[in-house]
Amino acid sequence: MRIRLHVAYDGGDFRGWAAQPGLRTVEGELSTALATVLRVPSVDLTCAGRTDAGVHARGQVVHVDLAALPEGTDQLVRRVNGVLATDLRVLRAAEAPPGFDARFSALWRRYVYRVVDDVASVDPLARGHVLVWPRPLDVAALDEASRALRGLHDFASFCRRREGATTIRTLLDLGWTRRPDGVVEAGVRADAFCHSMVRSLVGCLLAVGEGRRPVDWPAQVLVAGRRDPAVTVAPALGLTLEEVGYPADDELATRAETTRARRA
Amino acid sequence: MRIRLHVAYDGGDFRGWAAQPGLRTVEGELSTALATVLRVPSVDLTCAGRTDAGVHARGQVVHVDLAALPEGTDQLVRRVNGVLATDLRVLRAAEAPPGFDARFSALWRRYVYRVVDDVASVDPLARGHVLVWPRPLDVAALDEASRALRGLHDFASFCRRREGATTIRTLLDLGWTRRPDGVVEAGVRADAFCHSMVRSLVGCLLAVGEGRRPVDWPAQVLVAGRRDPAVTVAPALGLTLEEVGYPADDELATRAETTRARRA
Repeated sequence: MRIRLHVAYDGGDFRGWAAQPGLRTVEGELSTALATVLRVPSVDLTCAGRTDAGVHARGQVVHVDLAALPEGTDQLVRRVNGVLATDLRVLRAAEAPPGFDARFSALWRRYVYRVVDDVASVDPLARGHVLVWPRPLDVAALDEASRALRGLHDFASFCRRREGATTIRTLLDLGWTRRPDGVVEAGVRADAFCHSMVRSLVGCLLAVGEGRRPVDWPAQVLVAGRRDPAVTVAPALGLTLEEVGYPADDELATRAETTRARRA
Repeated sequence: MRIRLHVAYDGGDFRGWAAQPGLRTVEGELSTALATVLRVPSVDLTCAGRTDAGVHARGQVVHVDLAALPEGTDQLVRRVNGVLATDLRVLRAAEAPPGFDARFSALWRRYVYRVVDDVASVDPLARGHVLVWPRPLDVAALDEASRALRGLHDFASFCRRREGATTIRTLLDLGWTRRPDGVVEAGVRADAFCHSMVRSLVGCLLAVGEGRRPVDWPAQVLVAGRRDPAVTVAPALGLTLEEVGYPADDELATRAETTRARRA
């Protein structure tokens, strides 16, 4: 049986999602906790978004295949949370519908990048996930510059190159707003992201937002088709995986097949 | 000259506001940082709300009297924040209007207590200031029970007794709401609070909210006029001083005189 888990974490004390020997990672902590509670030697986890070191999640989705679940899913959630530290929580667990794959069934991932550009709006209670930016940001310019990046493009300029991996993605949303409390938020949604893509996009746009680069610079970087050393990757601290979108249950298997075929 | 400071802090790593030898306190850190930046041996601070160990603030107000301010207040804010750790921030500084006293001119203090009663709504990014409550809370019952506590009362039942200090207070607001994200908030506003009063009120009410006590129990505790050992003081973690209210500038001095006379 396949179990779907909704997971949230403060990424500050994790070296990212992926398990690495000797390092504290989300996958490592969660798989160890599940194995402890289920009294099995180990479990394999598949997640929707392999977040980098320091990146947070409120809406991570994970699946795990189990031979059997001795108790109900509510008991599983309670017991796993009893073993985990409080910076990592399982919010919900349920038996996954047929054909569900946390990674390959996903239609899109939505991230939010948060930054505060005014000392009077700084909230020490949010200092772990809202980046303090030392210069004022022009939200209209950020939003204007983002327009040219939306849609289907080759995002090679914003991706760490990986052998044989495509860098073509559909950027479904990329927009900036200033909340009433002064925090500036970038909402970024795409079918999938290549490595460090959100933080490279945000880093490129922040240069526009603070007036250091013209509004059309990000579009120029995009069409150049290769990484520009002038683009700074924004710090992980401000980035949170908020939500993963899936199709209706009867389309999960088809979606997973389509995605797998495209990646292969 | 008197400078008014707006201050915010994550109380988690502070032993409260009041300076204590050898302990990390908000007053201790802030006065040391100001003295360093101003190159004076020490400064005396007066705050609007002497928060307990672990209690947070987004809207603490402080005044400090200086012989001179070598630079402008914006520079003071920048330089003090450069010395302070990031869990304590000075948000604004300005020369105070005549008659202003951070403590005695205040008309009211507003606190918010935050608690999450549903594992699916837990946010690890907010774990430092939103208390996780293990049982479901009835917000309508919390609000109903709060009604009898509003207004002018002797809050001796909810105060740690202090020699010669009055426990009569005006509770201007006490109400509960559930936010869209599931977090339950109690908003508490009064002319002033005696020691541990907000946390005692919240602790008493949470017993009603989880169904362990009847809705009229807090009113019974109030009229009894003495501390009830059945009332649990709620943990500091969930409490934040959000705002302090002051009268118009031309009424600051009168208000300070009235308050001082009443306390004496």
